[in-house]
Amino acid sequence: MSNTSINDNEVDIVIAAINSDLEPFMNEWRPVFSQFHLIIVKDPDMNGELHIPEGFNVDVFTKSDIDRVVGSSTSILFSGYSCRYFGYLVSRKKYIISIDDDCIPARDTNGDLVDVVAQHIANLQAPATPFFFNTLYDPYRKGADFVRGYPFSLRSGVTCALSCGLWLNLADYDAPTQALKPGQRNSRYVDAVMTVPVRSLMPVSGINIAFNREVVGPALFPALRLAGEGKLRWETVEDIWSGMCVKVICDHLGLGVKSGIPYVWRRERGDAIESLKKEWEGVKLMEEVVPFFQSVRLPQTAITAEDCVVDMAKSVKEQLGKVDPMFARAADAMGDWVKLWKSVGSSSPGV
Amino acid sequence: MSNTSINDNEVDIVIAAINSDLEPFMNEWRPVFSQFHLIIVKDPDMNGELHIPEGFNVDVFTKSDIDRVVGSSTSILFSGYSCRYFGYLVSRKKYIISIDDDCIPARDTNGDLVDVVAQHIANLQAPATPFFFNTLYDPYRKGADFVRGYPFSLRSGVTCALSCGLWLNLADYDAPTQALKPGQRNSRYVDAVMTVPVRSLMPVSGINIAFNREVVGPALFPALRLAGEGKLRWETVEDIWSGMCVKVICDHLGLGVKSGIPYVWRRERGDAIESLKKEWEGVKLMEEVVPFFQSVRLPQTAITAEDCVVDMAKSVKEQLGKVDPMFARAADAMGDWVKLWKSVGSSSPGV
Repeated sequence: MSNTSINDNEVDIVIAAINSDLEPFMNEWRPVFSQFHLIIVKDPDMNGELHIPEGFNVDVFTKSDIDRVVGSSTSILFSGYSCRYFGYLVSRKKYIISIDDDCIPARDTNGDLVDVVAQHIANLQAPATPFFFNTLYDPYRKGADFVRGYPFSLRSGVTCALSCGLWLNLADYDAPTQALKPGQRNSRYVDAVMTVPVRSLMPVSGINIAFNREVVGPALFPALRLAGEGKLRWETVEDIWSGMCVKVICDHLGLGVKSGIPYVWRRERGDAIESLKKEWEGVKLMEEVVPFFQSVRLPQTAITAEDCVVDMAKSVKEQLGKVDPMFARAADAMGDWVKLWKSVGSSSPGV
Repeated sequence: MSNTSINDNEVDIVIAAINSDLEPFMNEWRPVFSQFHLIIVKDPDMNGELHIPEGFNVDVFTKSDIDRVVGSSTSILFSGYSCRYFGYLVSRKKYIISIDDDCIPARDTNGDLVDVVAQHIANLQAPATPFFFNTLYDPYRKGADFVRGYPFSLRSGVTCALSCGLWLNLADYDAPTQALKPGQRNSRYVDAVMTVPVRSLMPVSGINIAFNREVVGPALFPALRLAGEGKLRWETVEDIWSGMCVKVICDHLGLGVKSGIPYVWRRERGDAIESLKKEWEGVKLMEEVVPFFQSVRLPQTAITAEDCVVDMAKSVKEQLGKVDPMFARAADAMGDWVKLWKSVGSSSPGV
């Protein structure tokens, strides 16, 4: 770990509460989270009362807050995993870190607790290098550098907007993979983080993620919702869709996306075989989605993340809207998200 | 390590002998190399007699062999690190593995000897996935898979043509970096291998490399020679240049390139500060070279590696030839290489 200097006031940790009892989760994360401000958003579909232990600096948002701030004149649904996006909307901090509530801290190969906050912030504060691949991974990491042949003109890098962390134990597989290999667990701790090259698309997982809200906040949204969307990660693609959008937008704006450390330890949950029926829809959609994002180009007039989302929404509607009405709805949600971001974003901190 | 099945008759290990005493090198590699056929090419600039220990299945090639096979009617120079390419030319095997003679076997995080041959062949035999990034690295590796959101239509992958290994201890930095950080050593063993995405350029190092000779052999050549080229890696860019060519060619032909494990342990050698004067030329050239390779496109009529090299040579001459005569010479060497490959490649095995 490099010597990252973190200003506590620049970080919000956003937790989507899909389960009412957050006590075990938060107690596990206490050593890592306790110095930061937390935004907990309760899944509006969930009835039970939230259990949150003492000793955290936390703001909790529930269905009534969502209704009050967002109102009903929007196509955006904040239910299930999508509730976290309400936290992104009301945050006023520079950096947001979001971890699923079925994850606990991982340990590195030395057995030391992984500090996800410090590592995500290190990823976001160090430049990214999307224009040329460095074979020794992150060149800014202690003990590493740019290798022979790396152009000197590209060594200053660009701003890193998004840091995608990984998962030990239960990895982020889709339901078919999980059902085919029910015993498969990820035990390989790969001690690396790298910039995902420009124009290379990737499946961004929302499980363990951090981003620079000031730069790309408007590009992380809950837009694509499957008809049979459930309360398990492998039943959703909202993060995958948003991830494709944000990657294309980062490429357009000259920003970087990193993937790799930090890891979280993901606990077992759900029955993959039960989910299979729901998941196939998402699986099929990807075959339409990937060629679209590989070819979509944003206009030179799009110079902010907001601009890019608006233009992207237009292209989604024109090119994918006719394939499936789900895409047309996603395009509407993206347009509504930018409006919300502008209106809520300009109101007072903490709404 | 996956259960790679290696046919000994499909592998040539090519060693460029820059130093006359290969005994320590070969004795270190004995457990890994002894079952395979070795091609040792003696640097034609070197006068001393080669020392090679007993117990290896080895063919040695010297200046007289090079003169006999290649003749003098060529622009290609096989001196210094470039002598290894003569071994590529006379090999008749499917796979070639080449390791610099200042490297010894590395040990993994468990302290086990790294079998570079087994890992390189595993990399080459498993498909590559250049069209979409998999966050859990090589999806074909034991214990790994494609993550949620990875398109099913891209999961069968493509043929892997090139496997680029890495270095522990003395990493492959350029002379300025090495001179600035004389004490820097790479001690981070990253247990991963990944496909370098399509259209992402990379600095291919010749130190520890393997490739499918039948598929991309013609695209690995000694073409770009610096005026002040020396006998130290950081004084050369021949592999970097060839690597840019082969990456663009793999992208064009729908083949994959991997980077990551296996590691070798690279011993100390040379004085970086002494080399600095020579290296700067290579450093400056990269600023011209990278934009060229980022924009060069091969015609649809180029359907083999030979075709691609010939077309690439034309573009190099047209677009870079006027920038520096060194590039025009490189273009000539590329053309001559394809002619050589066709003539020598059609002669009898072992020349």
